[in-house]
Amino acid sequence: MRTANLGGRLAVIVGDRAVDVARASEGRFPADPQAVFAEWDAFARWGGDLDAALGRPFDPEELGPPVPRPAQVFAIGINYAEHAREAGYPPESPPVTFTKFPSCLAGPVCEVELPTGTVDWEVEAVVALSRPAFRVSRQDAWDHVAGITLGQDLSERTSQLAGAKPQFSLAKSFPGFGPTGPWLVTPDEFDDPGDLAISCSLSGEVVQSARTSAMIYDIPELVFRLSHVCRLYPGDLIFTGTPPGVGNARSPKRFLRPGEVLVSELEGVGSITQRFTAPRHGPDT
Amino acid sequence: MRTANLGGRLAVIVGDRAVDVARASEGRFPADPQAVFAEWDAFARWGGDLDAALGRPFDPEELGPPVPRPAQVFAIGINYAEHAREAGYPPESPPVTFTKFPSCLAGPVCEVELPTGTVDWEVEAVVALSRPAFRVSRQDAWDHVAGITLGQDLSERTSQLAGAKPQFSLAKSFPGFGPTGPWLVTPDEFDDPGDLAISCSLSGEVVQSARTSAMIYDIPELVFRLSHVCRLYPGDLIFTGTPPGVGNARSPKRFLRPGEVLVSELEGVGSITQRFTAPRHGPDT
Repeated sequence: MRTANLGGRLAVIVGDRAVDVARASEGRFPADPQAVFAEWDAFARWGGDLDAALGRPFDPEELGPPVPRPAQVFAIGINYAEHAREAGYPPESPPVTFTKFPSCLAGPVCEVELPTGTVDWEVEAVVALSRPAFRVSRQDAWDHVAGITLGQDLSERTSQLAGAKPQFSLAKSFPGFGPTGPWLVTPDEFDDPGDLAISCSLSGEVVQSARTSAMIYDIPELVFRLSHVCRLYPGDLIFTGTPPGVGNARSPKRFLRPGEVLVSELEGVGSITQRFTAPRHGPDT
Repeated sequence: MRTANLGGRLAVIVGDRAVDVARASEGRFPADPQAVFAEWDAFARWGGDLDAALGRPFDPEELGPPVPRPAQVFAIGINYAEHAREAGYPPESPPVTFTKFPSCLAGPVCEVELPTGTVDWEVEAVVALSRPAFRVSRQDAWDHVAGITLGQDLSERTSQLAGAKPQFSLAKSFPGFGPTGPWLVTPDEFDDPGDLAISCSLSGEVVQSARTSAMIYDIPELVFRLSHVCRLYPGDLIFTGTPPGVGNARSPKRFLRPGEVLVSELEGVGSITQRFTAPRHGPDT
């Protein structure tokens, strides 16, 4: 099943049509794409059987983030060995966990204002939780996953890497820095949800290309580890880390420029398209 | 006005009595302590006039976190010069911003399981936002503050400080590591909301004692800076950083032990009492 946020209302995508969940279920399930995680299992059983004839065509620009208001957003810093190398960190480090503050979440087609000239791309697979998870075993971890979506962990490198301590969470949370979508895909839709092609292209040039099976800590391991610290809630998100190819590691470094278009792709999920603009407003001092 | 979360319901504290807001307002304002931030200004006007006779006596153990489900929790790492020195960071660093994942929030009287033998205390003033704030000036910042409460930023130092990168957010987010309370106090209740005595005592011995006027970045400055990166929402929290006296900076180092009681205090707000227990369950491997 593929669930989407269509103009703020929960929809199930069947083929190229969108079924409005609250209407099709006659109110059994909510219109709010975030509220449905409180009863995800019942919803997933119901939504797996929908008929495309109940739906309507839609435009990708109508799509919002499939998980619009997660209570918690976990983001993993170093989770591909090649990215650890290019970023200068030992691959055996425990996975650094920060947050992307939820106000940075955006839909899969959006314009993003570049606050500085040093904003970088990081394509990532993103996991949404379906059930409360606390001290979950690796074997049970997939049972707590609602689905997988695609995300970008856009990162303002100057503020991220300046100062005595790395400033992960804030530098990665400007408006539009956390696009997700186009929809959330349940794990049963994939041959192997742990081995998906992931890539992104900048104005047509492929800049990142990998498979999610190259993660150091795979999805069950991340759910296991995070749930042994925090109580995870239904509808929480995990940004699972980026593969190699970021602009900050290139020689010369390359960053996003106004007018450029970044297209991110995840096999079996779809794509995100972001167009960048110059800052309309610099910070006051 | 002092607002509290009394058994999950929004209350206004008048003297030593608690007025149930949904009942006293005949449904004009919500029972959910988080939902009221969406209409904070109207609520604050209404709640300032309540009569103690409408309320009932209550037990502090009934109190939950006054802001139970913030969309965003911002936490500041180094915000007192003396704490920067004891922690080994230059005081001129920009304030490091991480999160405490909201599942760690707890009420002002609670038992906390110690996951390791290296859990440290950090008493902090905590600010709750009242209005959407994006690119707010320093002069307008206080108009976006609903009130001030007290918090502890409990920190598991081994996982926080191990590895190639400091692990702030996760190491500070075990269950019970973010107690707040006992209530939220509106800024007009203080002579100077930017200059409050703040302290904490471990089993009777004062271990931290300072004034919030010693912050490097004061409350308006934090609202100004954070709102120039992120869109801040009504009901978001800012943990404003801890003064000196943490256990990790002592010689020898000192950490919380099962059976100990930590009492935190903020002038004009009140106190938080936490009792610590041994781990009931170690992480699986």
